[in-house]
Order: sequence, then C-alpha cells, then structure tokens
Amino acid sequence: MGFTFQINDDVRFKHDQSLLNKAANYRPKIYDQKMTARSIVELKKDTTLLEGVGVKKIADIHELPKQHLKRSDQVILDFGNHRVGKFSINIDSVGSPMDAPLFLKLKFAEMPAELAQDSADYDGWLSKSWIQEEYVHLDTLPVTLKLPRRYSFRFVELTVLDTSPKWQAVFDAPTVETESAVQENTIKAPELADPKLKRIYQVGLKTLADCMQTVFEDGPKRDRRLWIGDLRLQALADYSTFKNIDIVKRCLYLFGAMPTEDGRIPANVFTQPKEQPDDTFLFDYGLFFISILSDYEEFNPDREVLDDLYNVAKRQMDVALKQVNSEGELQLNDDYPVFIDWSNDFNKATAGQAVLIYTLKQFIELANQKHDADTNKYTSKLTKLTEFANKQLFDTKSGFFVSGKKREVNVASQVWMTLAHVKNDHDTQQLMTQTVKQLFPIKGIATPYMYHHVTQALFEAGLKDEAVQLMKDYWGKMIDLGADTFWEAFDPDKPDYSPYGSSILNSYCHAWSCTPVYLIDKYLS
Amino acid sequence: MGFTFQINDDVRFKHDQSLLNKAANYRPKIYDQKMTARSIVELKKDTTLLEGVGVKKIADIHELPKQHLKRSDQVILDFGNHRVGKFSINIDSVGSPMDAPLFLKLKFAEMPAELAQDSADYDGWLSKSWIQEEYVHLDTLPVTLKLPRRYSFRFVELTVLDTSPKWQAVFDAPTVETESAVQENTIKAPELADPKLKRIYQVGLKTLADCMQTVFEDGPKRDRRLWIGDLRLQALADYSTFKNIDIVKRCLYLFGAMPTEDGRIPANVFTQPKEQPDDTFLFDYGLFFISILSDYEEFNPDREVLDDLYNVAKRQMDVALKQVNSEGELQLNDDYPVFIDWSNDFNKATAGQAVLIYTLKQFIELANQKHDADTNKYTSKLTKLTEFANKQLFDTKSGFFVSGKKREVNVASQVWMTLAHVKNDHDTQQLMTQTVKQLFPIKGIATPYMYHHVTQALFEAGLKDEAVQLMKDYWGKMIDLGADTFWEAFDPDKPDYSPYGSSILNSYCHAWSCTPVYLIDKYLS
Repeated sequence: MGFTFQINDDVRFKHDQSLLNKAANYRPKIYDQKMTARSIVELKKDTTLLEGVGVKKIADIHELPKQHLKRSDQVILDFGNHRVGKFSINIDSVGSPMDAPLFLKLKFAEMPAELAQDSADYDGWLSKSWIQEEYVHLDTLPVTLKLPRRYSFRFVELTVLDTSPKWQAVFDAPTVETESAVQENTIKAPELADPKLKRIYQVGLKTLADCMQTVFEDGPKRDRRLWIGDLRLQALADYSTFKNIDIVKRCLYLFGAMPTEDGRIPANVFTQPKEQPDDTFLFDYGLFFISILSDYEEFNPDREVLDDLYNVAKRQMDVALKQVNSEGELQLNDDYPVFIDWSNDFNKATAGQAVLIYTLKQFIELANQKHDADTNKYTSKLTKLTEFANKQLFDTKSGFFVSGKKREVNVASQVWMTLAHVKNDHDTQQLMTQTVKQLFPIKGIATPYMYHHVTQALFEAGLKDEAVQLMKDYWGKMIDLGADTFWEAFDPDKPDYSPYGSSILNSYCHAWSCTPVYLIDKYLS
Repeated sequence: MGFTFQINDDVRFKHDQSLLNKAANYRPKIYDQKMTARSIVELKKDTTLLEGVGVKKIADIHELPKQHLKRSDQVILDFGNHRVGKFSINIDSVGSPMDAPLFLKLKFAEMPAELAQDSADYDGWLSKSWIQEEYVHLDTLPVTLKLPRRYSFRFVELTVLDTSPKWQAVFDAPTVETESAVQENTIKAPELADPKLKRIYQVGLKTLADCMQTVFEDGPKRDRRLWIGDLRLQALADYSTFKNIDIVKRCLYLFGAMPTEDGRIPANVFTQPKEQPDDTFLFDYGLFFISILSDYEEFNPDREVLDDLYNVAKRQMDVALKQVNSEGELQLNDDYPVFIDWSNDFNKATAGQAVLIYTLKQFIELANQKHDADTNKYTSKLTKLTEFANKQLFDTKSGFFVSGKKREVNVASQVWMTLAHVKNDHDTQQLMTQTVKQLFPIKGIATPYMYHHVTQALFEAGLKDEAVQLMKDYWGKMIDLGADTFWEAFDPDKPDYSPYGSSILNSYCHAWSCTPVYLIDKYLS
C-alpha cells in the first residue's frame, strides 16, 4: 500500500493492552550487516524517468579517496544492490587548514530516476519529507559521519555544497549497516529452468526481505508502515520463503488490538514512537484481516491466536455485511471505499462483492473451527451473495461479470470473481480465457498488487502458461528497467507513472510487489 | 578579523608541545545559561539590507504552541538579544497520526537582514557553509530537537518544509543554552552621563563577552577563530572589563607554540579538532604578537610568560626588520602584506612603517625587561625608522604624512603615525586636528578595527571631543540600525557593505568592534 487520503479525526479507538503486549512479545530480532559501496557511477545522459539501468560505472570504490571535492562537486556511489539501513562515511579535508564548515548534501535513491530529478521541483500532494535527502554541516574534520536515520537505497549522491577556496573534502569507506528481520541467504530458491523466472524470484525475495523489519512494512522508503493489504500478501510470501511466523502474529495482534469503538480495523497502524491506529478505513482492507487470520491458521494452526482474534475477525464481517441488501448485493459507500487498485478509472462494485465472498468463505472456515453457533447465518449470507453475483452481476450474453449501473466490463471484476470461485472450475477457466482474449493487454491498472491478483486468477483458472507469461511480461519488465526490488506502482504503458504526481516519491521496493515468490512456490514448484 | 585569502601550502611549522600544554592548561571554563525566546516577530516589509530594526513583534512566545504549522508555514522567534549557544525546541504533531516525517528548516540570524535574503542566492567566494541554516527530518514526534552545533543569533526562523496533508507541526519552548568564558553581569559599567555612550558601552561589552569562548574568537558566527589582530584589541578590552588573564595567556601560547620554521607567527590559529596554525601571514599581524605580549606584561607583569615568549616576539621583530632598508624605510612585499583595514583602496606603506615603529617601541620595553644585550641594536633601528618617517614620509608643505610613490595622503597614515608617537605631543595634536578638518568625514574605511585606531589616535592626540563624536557617529549608528552587538564591517555611507559580496555572510558580533569598552575606560573614566 502507499497512501490514500482520508481524515477521520472524530473516530474513537479501542486499545487492548493485552493484545498489544503480545504484539510486543513477537517483535522480531533485527539482523544487521555492514556492506560498503561497490563503485562510483554517473547517470547516463539519456536517463529518462524510470529507465533504471541508466548508470555507468566510472571507477572502482577504491578510487573514492583520490577525489578532492570542492564547491558543487558531486559523486554518485553505487552499493550494487538495494539496501535498507544506516549510512556512514569517513570524511577528511585536504589542502590548507579547514577554515569553514563543510556543507554537504546526501541524497539516497533506490533508482537512478530519483537522482535525475531535482527535489526542489517536486510539488505533489504527498509529503516531500519522503525524499531521502539530508543537508549536513560539519564544523571539524576528519569525522566518521553516521546518519541516524534508516534509508532505503542503492545509490548515494554526495554533493559538496561548499568547502572554502582553500581546501577540499575527501571521502572514504561509504558503508551501510543493513537491517532486516530475515536473512536472505538462508533461502534456497526453487529450481527454475527459465532464467527470467529465476531472476523474478530473486528480486521478489529481496523485496520481501527488505520490507521485513519490526513489522511487515509496505515499503522501507515509504510509508515504512504496516498496511493490511500489504500484510496479507507479505504473509503469504513469507510462508513460501522465510516462514517467520512471529512477525505475522505480531502484525495480526497490532491490528486486532486497535479497532474503532464500532469494531472496524484501520487500514494501517503505526508502531513508532508508540502503537497507534491510522484514521484511514478501506472496505476490502478491513475484510482482509479475516483473510490474514485464515491464511495464518492454514499455514500454522494456532488455537491461541484464533481465540484471541476470532471476534475481531467476526466483527469485520458483520460490519461489511451491514452493507449488503436483502437481494445479496453489496452497496458501497464513499465513507468506506473499496481499494482494489490505485486506479480509479474503473468501477469497483463487483470486485468488492467478490472480495466479500472470498473473505466470507475464509471466515466460515474459521467459524467452523470455533464451532460458532452463528455459522449457518454466514453460510446463508454466502449463498445470497453468490447467487446475486451469478444472476445479477454476470452478463450471460457477453459472458463477463459487469460492474455498476453502467454494467461496465473490467478486468478486476473477472479476476476477483475467479479468486472467489463463484463459478465452477470449467466456467472459471472459460471466464479467464475470455478475459485474456478480450480484455488483455491490461490497460489502466497501475499496481503490482492488482497484477498479482490477475496472475493468481489465471493460475486458479488453470491457465498456467498465461499466468507465467503475464508474470514475465510485468515483473520481468521492471527487471529490464533496472529493478533490484519490485516497485510500488508500475504501468508498463507508462513507465514513469506515479500515483503522487512525481516518481521521485515512488517506493521502488514495495511489499505488495514481492508475490512472485508465493506464486512460483504455489503454482510452479 | 575575517578572512583574507592566502594559500601557502609549502610552509613548514614548528610545534612546541610544552607551550601547547600551557595553552591547554589555561583553557577557560565555559559558563552556560538557559534562555527561552521572548516573542514571535515578523520582518517589516520595508526591511532593507541592514535596517536591522526591521522586525515587528506579533505575539508573545507563549502563543507559539497555538500555531499549527503545515507545508511552507514559517515563524520567526526573537530571543530579545544576541545569543551564542546551542538551540533546542520541543516539537509535536496535531491532527491525524503522523504519516510522514517532518521536514524542517531552521535559520539562525544575528540580524533581520540575514532573514530577508535567500541563502540560495548567495554566490560569493566565501564559503556558504557559514550561513547558519539547517535542514532536519524527524521521523517521529513528539521530540525535543537539540541541535548539536553552536549558533550565534538573535532570531530563529522555523520553516515547515512539509508535514503531510493530514497533520501539522507544533512548537514549544525554544531555548538557547548560551556559552561564554565570562559572565557579563559581573561587570559594573562606568558612570556615563551620555545615554548614547552608555549604550555603546553595553553593546561593546556584550560583543566582547560573546566572542570570549575557549579562545578569543573573532566572531562567534564566523570565523569562530583566533586571529592576532582581533586578539590584540580583545585583550585590551578584557583588561578594562573582565580581567580574564588566563584566556589571554592561552592565546599567546597558542601563537607562540606554532610559528613557521623561519619563525613567523601565522595570522590565526585553529584549536578544533586540534591546535593547528593557518597558512595566512600578515606583516602587521606578526608584529602585533609583540604588542599583545607587551600589553599583557604591562597589565600583569608575568616573568614566566615573558621568558617563554620573548624569543618568539624577538623573532617577529627580526623578520620584520629584514624588510627595512639602510635609509630606515620599510619595503613591503606582496607575500607578506600589511592588513591595516579591509579596504584596499588606499596605500598602506606609511601606515605599515608606523605599525613597525609602534611595535618596535613596545619590543624595546620588553628587551629592557629581559636585559637583552641586543637592545641597543633595536634602539638604533627605531631611530632610523622614526627619522625616515619624519623626514621622508612627512610632507612639510601639506603637513601630512604621505604614502607610496604617489605620495598619497590618507587617514590611516596619520592615525598610525599618531599612535606610534613619532612626533611630539604638540605636533601630533596639530596633525590630527588637520586630519579631522581636511580628511573627515572618513571615506572608504569599512571596519570598526580601523575606526578604533582613528578614535584612539584622536584621544592620544588630546582631541577628546572629536574622539567621542566619532565613537558616537560610528558605533552609535550601528546601534541606530539595530545592533545588539557590534559588527565586523560597517561603512556608514554603505550600510549594506560586505567584504564578501553579500551581507548574509557578515559577522554581526565581531571582537575587533568591541573596543569602545576599552576606549571609554582608558580615556573617559
């Protein structure tokens, strides 16, 4: 997830300290590792926005101390791969005694595209505070500059804003102390013949690892925060790889501990400086709490967690079902929007109905495990919702699910109805085959989050070749453009797309984009 | 002093550890005191460069936490007087949870003129690193932000570069922890009937106190460094006020410990991160080492210091006398320029000759105390130099000392010949009377350093009224323009004069400008 703009400052939250204590107990150990920069690079002159391969090595990193930098001189360091951690560098002066402070700018970038843009030009609505750029005055040298903040980057651009005419600055030993809750090198990748798939798996694993911190973060550059939608996919990817169940439990408890007084789960929570729910609410994100709990119980049956959180899950379903009319139709409202994808160019009603069916099925499983006396009530609701979907939302003439009053045919509706398995396997395969034929190539979908669901729907419909092809076309193209980790947003038709008006704010290592590791594990190995 | 541009990277220095140890022993205790800001102000719209009175109070400081600052909002805090020390402030957020870092700019200014200028416009040769401006990202709030550097300021401009659309920043308890080697409130000012003189004394005392740190600094904003020319005047001002002799001894030992291999004293030394001589050399500054030692011995006869440093002083005189020809004429060369004043618009040869006579007289006093067998040699040199001055440099027709091949008549020559007492008292008074009549108002002199010497020359010539008038016209005008401390550079005809191409780099609390406290004590009380 990234950022969706809601202010609900009149909402009151509960605060279950015993669940927060459990969340604190499952806080993972953070592994750190020191790594130095590998080379000095320059931007290629023709670097367009996201042409991420746009750097050229100009020197080995051992050449760095030989450079004497004066006012306005600049050097770009390349750490060779995506890194999340704290940065330090040795700085000294050469020439006459240092008769003025050193004034230095450091800009951290996941992609060269960020360096190609001037931060001063950014005027979007998202906070410019996310730009990873620091200005530092150093009164005396030599010094080992240790920046206190954590950055997410591969490249570091050092700009000497000023020395004095009498001396120059020299730099040595640029180092990152990486941070992650997991150790990537403990994972043995599945045997994959296709080199592109192999690389997609590697990049997905790196993406996941770099987002696993004291919680599952959506992105280590931005927002560095626990979002429900990201968590669901990260947890699935984790079960296929690191199998770190503590961090999943921690995140479940964090959400479970801080619903609103009427029981709704916020779309995200903060953990720094203290645990705090955000005031943003999304219909599908609330329901995915159920999904995460269900997926977790399936991977690791855990009575304690189920007992602690079942009622929270049930409350999400009850809140959602209030929006279903007597016909079995979900009626969305603007105060509790459904996310599905960053794009708002398509109608999301039918996709929302499918998400409700998808999560209701998972909820009924949980209710059965809990021997909940209300289970039958939910089963009959499921029947209603499914009937409405098949009878009212499915257009027999076109063979597609339609959405909204204008009976719009879009990819998201077919995909989520497939994932919800509202039709039998034969009809589902038929639906997705027709989707590929008539609605591909996909237009107007901007997130790996939604592409994940499309790809999984293809797998679920038995269209393995088409699924693999889409994975290679979409995640593979990010790699072609220089991705070391997968991006928050990517529209193959508009490589410089940003939901924020400038790709300088984009997160180029984003959790919800790591899912090829899960898809490959589940469907290809 | 400020900055004079020389690079002499081939010079080799001595390093007398026993003298450096003594310098370390005399390092003064630093007093600190916490003070909060007094009010919130705004710049008056018509604030021209140095119209320093250009702020208007808009609220009491207690109103500060009521302001909720969002992107681009700004507030200017007024600490009520000049402060030197470390800054801290409490920062919190209001609104939705803090979903992005706070990006904050802090600009520290001694004078409103610094705030009226955009730092980005500065393109002078002096390092822009002197601009007291910090950019800070804060990942979590609330926090007490404690900046690690020392600033010299009265005003702090806070600019919220960004929050997010969902929350605002609030500030409280802006505090400075001041630093000085002395406590200003221990000094009882002399009784002065004239309120302007009284204020000049106060401002001079504040200037001196704020420049007294672990050494006598030239300016706490810039260069924060020990220069010989400033030290000489600061020490005299100190004897009239704080009488802190340890810091004078420390500074004498620092210079004495690190001459060049051929014995020359550098114009300034650094003490951070370690003691280090600068590679700048000035003819008059070298000689003033003698002056400072002589003034010190006069104020506080001290055999140990004299024994330790006499030979260093003697070496300065010997190096200088090498530049005197057989006629008794000082022959300056470009490698070892004479400073006299920042202005280079007048010929400095005769003033240089006078400085040599002035310091040679002081040196002969020291030589007598040391019973130096060479004393007679110096006495005869003095005779030669004085004769040359009176016969060759004094133009009987005009009644003025002339300077250079073009026999230029300028103020500096008359002033320094007066201070050197090359003529008898009657002729000296005649010379300065004629100087006031024909060469005043002073043109083209830009420093309080040189104005000090003019004023003292008037006092020495018995022209007390004229001296007082000049003090009131010159230092008094800075006060009229809003000075809380006296400035490094000030030309009454060009209030926005800067030796650096922009007054944003000027130091508005500068040691060599504090001398009214000395002049008032010596000549008016």
